[in-house]
Amino acid sequence: QPWGRYWDRWLMMALIGVAVGLVGYFLHLSVHILAAIKYHGTRWLLSHTHVIVGWVFNITFSLALVYASTWLVVNIAPEAGGAGVAEVTAYLNGCFMPKILNIRTFAVKFLSAATAVGSGLPVGPEGPMIHMGAIVGAGLSQGHSTTLGIDSGLFRRFQNPKDKRDFVTAGAAMGVAVAFSAPIGGLLFVLEEIASFWQQSLGWQIFFACMMAVLTSDTMRSMQAAIGEGQFGMFDSVFFEVKTQLTTHVLMVVPAAAIGIICGICAIIFTLINLKVARARQEFFKGRPAKWRMAEPCALIVIFVTLGMILPLFFPCTPTQCVIIQGETKPLCPEGTPQDIKRIVEDSTELYTCSRTAHDSEIPPEWDPDGKGGGSGSKNISVPKAYNELATLMSVPGEDAIRHLFSRGTHREFGYAAIIVMLIFYFLGAAWTAGSAISSGVFVPMLLIGACIGRLVGLVVVDIAAAHGAGSQGAPPGVFLPPSPWAWIDPGAFALIGAGAFMGGVTRMTLALAVIIMEMSNDVRILLPVMVAIMIAKFVADAATHSLYHGLLEVKCVPFLPKDPHSTISLDLVEVRYVMAAPVVTLREQMRLGDVRDVLRKTRHNGFPVVRDTPQGGVCVGLVVRDHLMKLLVEAVKRGTCQHLEVPFSDLNRQFVDASALESEAAQQMAVLEGRPLTPAHFPNDPSLWDEPLDLTPYINTSAVRVPESFTLERAYILFSTMGLRHLVVVDEHNRVRGMVTRKDLLGYKLDEAVKRSRSGGPLASQ
Amino acid sequence: QPWGRYWDRWLMMALIGVAVGLVGYFLHLSVHILAAIKYHGTRWLLSHTHVIVGWVFNITFSLALVYASTWLVVNIAPEAGGAGVAEVTAYLNGCFMPKILNIRTFAVKFLSAATAVGSGLPVGPEGPMIHMGAIVGAGLSQGHSTTLGIDSGLFRRFQNPKDKRDFVTAGAAMGVAVAFSAPIGGLLFVLEEIASFWQQSLGWQIFFACMMAVLTSDTMRSMQAAIGEGQFGMFDSVFFEVKTQLTTHVLMVVPAAAIGIICGICAIIFTLINLKVARARQEFFKGRPAKWRMAEPCALIVIFVTLGMILPLFFPCTPTQCVIIQGETKPLCPEGTPQDIKRIVEDSTELYTCSRTAHDSEIPPEWDPDGKGGGSGSKNISVPKAYNELATLMSVPGEDAIRHLFSRGTHREFGYAAIIVMLIFYFLGAAWTAGSAISSGVFVPMLLIGACIGRLVGLVVVDIAAAHGAGSQGAPPGVFLPPSPWAWIDPGAFALIGAGAFMGGVTRMTLALAVIIMEMSNDVRILLPVMVAIMIAKFVADAATHSLYHGLLEVKCVPFLPKDPHSTISLDLVEVRYVMAAPVVTLREQMRLGDVRDVLRKTRHNGFPVVRDTPQGGVCVGLVVRDHLMKLLVEAVKRGTCQHLEVPFSDLNRQFVDASALESEAAQQMAVLEGRPLTPAHFPNDPSLWDEPLDLTPYINTSAVRVPESFTLERAYILFSTMGLRHLVVVDEHNRVRGMVTRKDLLGYKLDEAVKRSRSGGPLASQ
Repeated sequence: QPWGRYWDRWLMMALIGVAVGLVGYFLHLSVHILAAIKYHGTRWLLSHTHVIVGWVFNITFSLALVYASTWLVVNIAPEAGGAGVAEVTAYLNGCFMPKILNIRTFAVKFLSAATAVGSGLPVGPEGPMIHMGAIVGAGLSQGHSTTLGIDSGLFRRFQNPKDKRDFVTAGAAMGVAVAFSAPIGGLLFVLEEIASFWQQSLGWQIFFACMMAVLTSDTMRSMQAAIGEGQFGMFDSVFFEVKTQLTTHVLMVVPAAAIGIICGICAIIFTLINLKVARARQEFFKGRPAKWRMAEPCALIVIFVTLGMILPLFFPCTPTQCVIIQGETKPLCPEGTPQDIKRIVEDSTELYTCSRTAHDSEIPPEWDPDGKGGGSGSKNISVPKAYNELATLMSVPGEDAIRHLFSRGTHREFGYAAIIVMLIFYFLGAAWTAGSAISSGVFVPMLLIGACIGRLVGLVVVDIAAAHGAGSQGAPPGVFLPPSPWAWIDPGAFALIGAGAFMGGVTRMTLALAVIIMEMSNDVRILLPVMVAIMIAKFVADAATHSLYHGLLEVKCVPFLPKDPHSTISLDLVEVRYVMAAPVVTLREQMRLGDVRDVLRKTRHNGFPVVRDTPQGGVCVGLVVRDHLMKLLVEAVKRGTCQHLEVPFSDLNRQFVDASALESEAAQQMAVLEGRPLTPAHFPNDPSLWDEPLDLTPYINTSAVRVPESFTLERAYILFSTMGLRHLVVVDEHNRVRGMVTRKDLLGYKLDEAVKRSRSGGPLASQ
Repeated sequence: QPWGRYWDRWLMMALIGVAVGLVGYFLHLSVHILAAIKYHGTRWLLSHTHVIVGWVFNITFSLALVYASTWLVVNIAPEAGGAGVAEVTAYLNGCFMPKILNIRTFAVKFLSAATAVGSGLPVGPEGPMIHMGAIVGAGLSQGHSTTLGIDSGLFRRFQNPKDKRDFVTAGAAMGVAVAFSAPIGGLLFVLEEIASFWQQSLGWQIFFACMMAVLTSDTMRSMQAAIGEGQFGMFDSVFFEVKTQLTTHVLMVVPAAAIGIICGICAIIFTLINLKVARARQEFFKGRPAKWRMAEPCALIVIFVTLGMILPLFFPCTPTQCVIIQGETKPLCPEGTPQDIKRIVEDSTELYTCSRTAHDSEIPPEWDPDGKGGGSGSKNISVPKAYNELATLMSVPGEDAIRHLFSRGTHREFGYAAIIVMLIFYFLGAAWTAGSAISSGVFVPMLLIGACIGRLVGLVVVDIAAAHGAGSQGAPPGVFLPPSPWAWIDPGAFALIGAGAFMGGVTRMTLALAVIIMEMSNDVRILLPVMVAIMIAKFVADAATHSLYHGLLEVKCVPFLPKDPHSTISLDLVEVRYVMAAPVVTLREQMRLGDVRDVLRKTRHNGFPVVRDTPQGGVCVGLVVRDHLMKLLVEAVKRGTCQHLEVPFSDLNRQFVDASALESEAAQQMAVLEGRPLTPAHFPNDPSLWDEPLDLTPYINTSAVRVPESFTLERAYILFSTMGLRHLVVVDEHNRVRGMVTRKDLLGYKLDEAVKRSRSGGPLASQ
């Protein structure tokens, strides 16, 4: 039965999945091409011409990309700025967020994210991917776009707020799934972070949709690989794949806890800087022309590129002394000195070299003592003779830097100095860049910052162990390879833990994050220390600030309800009458059209209880929302009469995806409210219209939830957050309306005031 | 703030986590020791004495274990029979399940599960582990056990139904986490399958608790290893670890879909057989002495052991021809004939041999052509010269058989015949055994059956590929090793997919299952085909039956509310008045004690609306539950007066963990109801007591949810399932009580009747 009733819903989920998968693939491809031009071009110029030429090329190219990125955002769709995760969360929480699901926003988001990430700014494409997934979910399911003048006429039954919200939720999940190649992670991300309320059947649909999305993007990527290598169909979808699996040791929990604490503290600082910058930016640009905003990202990229080329100059060339090929136990050394293992290179990453030309060398035959060459393909490894530690991290895209930091068996590839410089540089850069007028996410920067912290702690642990003489057989102290019982002391593994912990501290996710880390690293064994670090980081950060997204929503003054109420005492002891707004403007079932207009004109409420007069007084029969009343008014004025006025339910709930339609709609409604005639001249303007009676009965939601005054605040909060309510009517024992509770009444500070009033036995809340 | 308010809750979670981890470890250890005695003893006797001696030992030992197991269940605690997952689910859904959280049930469950699993019946310890986790959660958090006469006096604030439910949920999650070494899987299992309602903060606490539980059991296991090998602290916690990771291919989706369909169909058959057997058993044992129940498991083990030793005789000895050591690319062959690759052996599994003595041989030096010996430790591999395919699967514990089936690079280790015989044998055995009078779970059987199905499909795919000439370099058609683009065609990988799909078909889990499969196999790359197969199996099975657990609850007549209502048309169109029970027995705020007693005596309702008389008629002010009224009555009779009668809230809600306390409580309550004096003679028995007025005001739940008659059934269902309600008061527009809705009114068939009535405009529901 469920399948028979819902097959079109599953079909729509599959469609959205395929679409989001394609979007993700093409975004990834665009970023990849732009970054390849930038880094390969610069590197070629550096090794073949003067340094200045390379710098000029690098800065020109990057600046052009950033300019394009910010121009689009500032001039075409300001809503596309930032990551968009907070906005989508707020929309799903029940807040009104104009234009964020617009098709224009989508186009700008795509282009701006591709150029911004390709330019080398410390930003990632994952946040925009989530936002784009949500837009695709909304756009496809609603089946029409007013901007493009298209109305497919299909899927009309999805044109209601609940279904739209479901598809937006699914779209966001698919965005995460595609961005990290983590289908389960995507589903859990929306469950934990985004979705405000949840149903089992929706969970199954999202599961299916995420699967479709990742299948699509993997298939596209394998088609791309087939062009190069002639083998279609192999999925290589694990993003930051870990190739050496380490057995977890019980002692690993100790450094994991340390990483959790440090990452928690850093996350607090990161969040505070981020919010401070956001507030300062809001303040600064207020009242100034929008064009000024374009200056900020442009200035940032100039600083970032220049510092990125100057800072490595202070680092000496580090000789590559020995190579340990993944899966082998013996190091391969240029001079055949296995006791000199200091630097290790892996085939998955490419080191930015000092010698400029050395990295196209092959392993010479004499390095391969028994002619076997270990695993397949290791013959083609290219080994630079020397490399620059900082440049290896800075002069590559963020994702490659993360791969360097995550790589295992490379205990001393990066020293303290290089990691600390990288950490400070990226920390400040990311905190400042986030929220500037480009479309950009903070996931990649967060992973990178966390990985740096984790690797630092890992280096400390390696030094401690080395000081106690631990080491692999035949290797110097401080190098431990998998057969050794000390193999768990690997800075690469700690970098992975750090990445999870820092993200946990900033976003306060736990479950979804642990799964995303597991899916993107392909390492299940390290799950326990990762969980420990995430949990501790979350605890530490919870003590000081909100999560970054909730903080950003506060800066933007969005009434967001967190899933668990923030309050100092138990809300079980406070009654709902201490927060309700009273007295309430109520309507009757039959009203003069003019009276409805007056009510709408005089108040800004979004919901009105409808009462019926009985011998015992007016009793509550339901609720009417402002939006529906507005549409009724406009329709009545258009027709010039209230007789036989019928607006189908789907039209009442229709939201306009396009900005211009929304504006004209709003203009019409304003005109009606102010008693002006509607703009097109042929609309009749008959003053007697306002005296006609309007029957509200068909538009009353009789299933509106009403509660007694003694209802506890705790349960009211649960009602709002689990059922996605916007209004709660408070009635007395005779079902007479006594007040209304809305989302805004349940925000943190309001709750605290209510608790205070209820304790002092003071007055109830007033209007 | 949250930490300050809730630190004791987190501490309790940690405590429960450690306790469940210990329980899981000791259960695992007991099973391991018993199974080792059985299988090693039998094997030693087989190879050193006559076959009959081995058979006698095997059957005596197994029968003794099963007898102990079933004796405990039948004579001490019948509630400990079966898996217990369905019972815990029903308890958390809001159904009344007596004695399932009893400490006696716990002890019997532990011993019965250890002996039943150790005996070699086709059962697993995972289901009982979940139940035991729930009991530990309830027992520790309530801080007292009446059976043991202990009342710690601690944690009194957790002695209320909501907190108890939270801790039981957490305990069940930890049970799964420990059973599969899958902390995230445990959390998701309760989210998807067990918990009926969910809060974010509870999710975080369970995350933490699962982490603690798995840490504890891993630490214990590493301590055990330290005794043997002298290395403390290494976690080796991945249960069915996959060592060769294969790159997924887009074509893999096709056999995965086939596996999904086949597993879905098999799951339907499995569920139907299971339910038929359960009904037949209920029918058969009704009215017969309880002792008879002990015959069933005993007969089963005799059949199972005997067939398990006879069936392999029909299979010839298969020569082990070549060995491919994991991680190597070249096969090692006894006769040095690499073109003869047919049988492959891995170091993780031990083959049941024909030659009886061959499996203690070492790899002779001449097998190791270049003296390197591949990875570490591979020198110690023991290679039998010949083995029996069926005995390799049948004469080992279920978990080892799963390891055999999951092993990769072993394309033709098992032929069609052996797998089909194993499948039929285990399928029927598991379907019959589940639910007999022992404590046993079906997770391991489900994994094993699914693995057989998956491996069969895998063999077919291998044959198709071989027929087209695909193969690794230097190997005959049909053998593909990792560097080959055909490496994805591996029956071991398909066995993993099948295990997930079959479990998905039987339990209808998706998300949790995919994560559990990922965590227990350590293979992230195969996630997509696993998801495809699970989803398809679920679809196929959904078309025919309920999930096994819900089916079992139906057999037991438990009023369980699934998360999504089963109904043919949308419940949005049906009003709540079509299902409500009316008229309703109501109480007043002040009543004669005798009247309260009469109401309780005459009706079996569990909740009573309280009305207040006003000039406009009686209006609803709240709800009183039967349980509280009963306790008030008993208290009043004990004191002999209603004056100053005060029962603290925590006592009202206290549930008795122990069976005998529950019974004496019930006896007292019955005595009061029937007007008899309470058993201890010194209680006063004053007839005038029944005329005293009782003030119910302090015991009224004024936050009881009341809804109008026109409330939709859809929203009522959501209220029940998300807020864990048990009663919903239906009122008219003047807040006069019109009816009551309880869980039973929302069961599937009741909903269908309501839909019919509402369509025909027929009469409302009656009492």
